[in-house]
Amino acid sequence: MRSAADAAEPAPPVRSRPGGRTARIRTQVLDAVTAELAEHGYDGLSMDAVAARAGVHRATVYRRWQEVGGLLADLFDAAGNQRWDPRDTGSLHGDLAALNHEIQDSFTEQPSLAMALIAASFRSEEAARALRRLWDERYTQSEIIVERAIQRGELPSDVDARALLIAATAPLYHHLVLLRTPPDPHLPELAATTATLAAGAGAFTR
Amino acid sequence: MRSAADAAEPAPPVRSRPGGRTARIRTQVLDAVTAELAEHGYDGLSMDAVAARAGVHRATVYRRWQEVGGLLADLFDAAGNQRWDPRDTGSLHGDLAALNHEIQDSFTEQPSLAMALIAASFRSEEAARALRRLWDERYTQSEIIVERAIQRGELPSDVDARALLIAATAPLYHHLVLLRTPPDPHLPELAATTATLAAGAGAFTR
Repeated sequence: MRSAADAAEPAPPVRSRPGGRTARIRTQVLDAVTAELAEHGYDGLSMDAVAARAGVHRATVYRRWQEVGGLLADLFDAAGNQRWDPRDTGSLHGDLAALNHEIQDSFTEQPSLAMALIAASFRSEEAARALRRLWDERYTQSEIIVERAIQRGELPSDVDARALLIAATAPLYHHLVLLRTPPDPHLPELAATTATLAAGAGAFTR
Repeated sequence: MRSAADAAEPAPPVRSRPGGRTARIRTQVLDAVTAELAEHGYDGLSMDAVAARAGVHRATVYRRWQEVGGLLADLFDAAGNQRWDPRDTGSLHGDLAALNHEIQDSFTEQPSLAMALIAASFRSEEAARALRRLWDERYTQSEIIVERAIQRGELPSDVDARALLIAATAPLYHHLVLLRTPPDPHLPELAATTATLAAGAGAFTR
C-alpha cells in the first residue's frame, strides 16, 4: 500500500544516498520515470523520453535498465526501500483510518502515480513482480499498527496481522482501483471501523 | 463481481435471444471477443482477428463496434444482462462464502477472462465505463444475499447491503487482482467470516 504515494515523492532516501555518479544517475532517471509515468501513463513511457528528461545519455539508460519494465521495477524497488512509518494515533481504529486516508489520497491526487503503477503492472511482468515485492514490504511495515494494538491490550496476541490489515484496506483499493467509484470521504473511517469490529469479534484470531 | 465468470460462459441469454441475423452476428462476434481476449489478452485483441474468428465480414464488425473498446463495452454489457443468481445456502456466512468461491474460481481458471477484462479496463476508457456498469449490476444482484439474511433475522433491516458485500468480497479481489498472491483456498471462507462477524457487531448498520 502507498506504493504510489511514496514513489510519487521525489524521494529523499534515493536522492540523499551516498555515492557518486552512479547513484546520482539513478536518482535522475527514476525521478524522470516518475514524472513521465504520472503525466503520460504507461503508454507514454519510453526509454528515450526518460533519458531526455533525466539529462542522461540514452546508452547509459539502455545499458543499466534495458527496457521500460526494468525502469519500473527499479522505481518500485526504490519506493520499497524508502523509510515509511504508519502514523501512531493512539488507537487501532485511528491508525487504520490514518492508513486508509493515505491510501485514498494517493489515488485521488492528480495525476496519481499509484494508479499509473498498478496499470503498469498489468502490462509488464517485471513491473508486476516488483509491485508484489512493494506491497509485501508495505504490509510488513504496517504490522507495527497491529503490534501497538496488542501492546495496548486492544487485540489478542495471536491475531493475524496481515489478514487484519488487508481487511481494513481492501475496500479502499476495491473502490478506487477496481470499481472506480468517486472517492467517498467516509470510506477510510468506515473500513477502519469494520476491521476493528471484526477484530474485536475474533475474526483474525489464528 | 463475477464480471468474468459470467462473460466467460458462451452465454445462453445472448445466444438464445430471439431475433434473426443481427442477434446471431452479435453472439458470434462476442463469443469471438471472449475467446481472443482469454487467449491473447487485450494486446492480442484486434478487430480483424475477431471478425475472422467469428466468420463475420470485417466491414460489419467495424460498422457496428467501431473499435476494440466498443467490442469490450458490448461484451461487458452482454454479461451484465445475463441472469445470475447468488447461491442460497441457508445462511449469510454460507452465501458470502459461495459468492467468494465463485469469484476466486473466475480468477484462477486459465485463461482467466475476469483478469483479462480488468486489465482491459486499464487500457480503454470505454471498457472501464462498461466494467463499472457491470460491477454495479452484479452488486445489485448480490443484494438478495443480504435481503435473505434480514428475513432470516440474521441482520437488522437497516444494514447497508452494498457496504457489507464489498467488505466480504474486497479481500478476494485485493489478493487475486492487486497483490497477485497464489490463491488461498481458505480465503473465501475467511473473508465471509470477517464480514459476518463485523455485521454481527453492527459494522454496516446505517
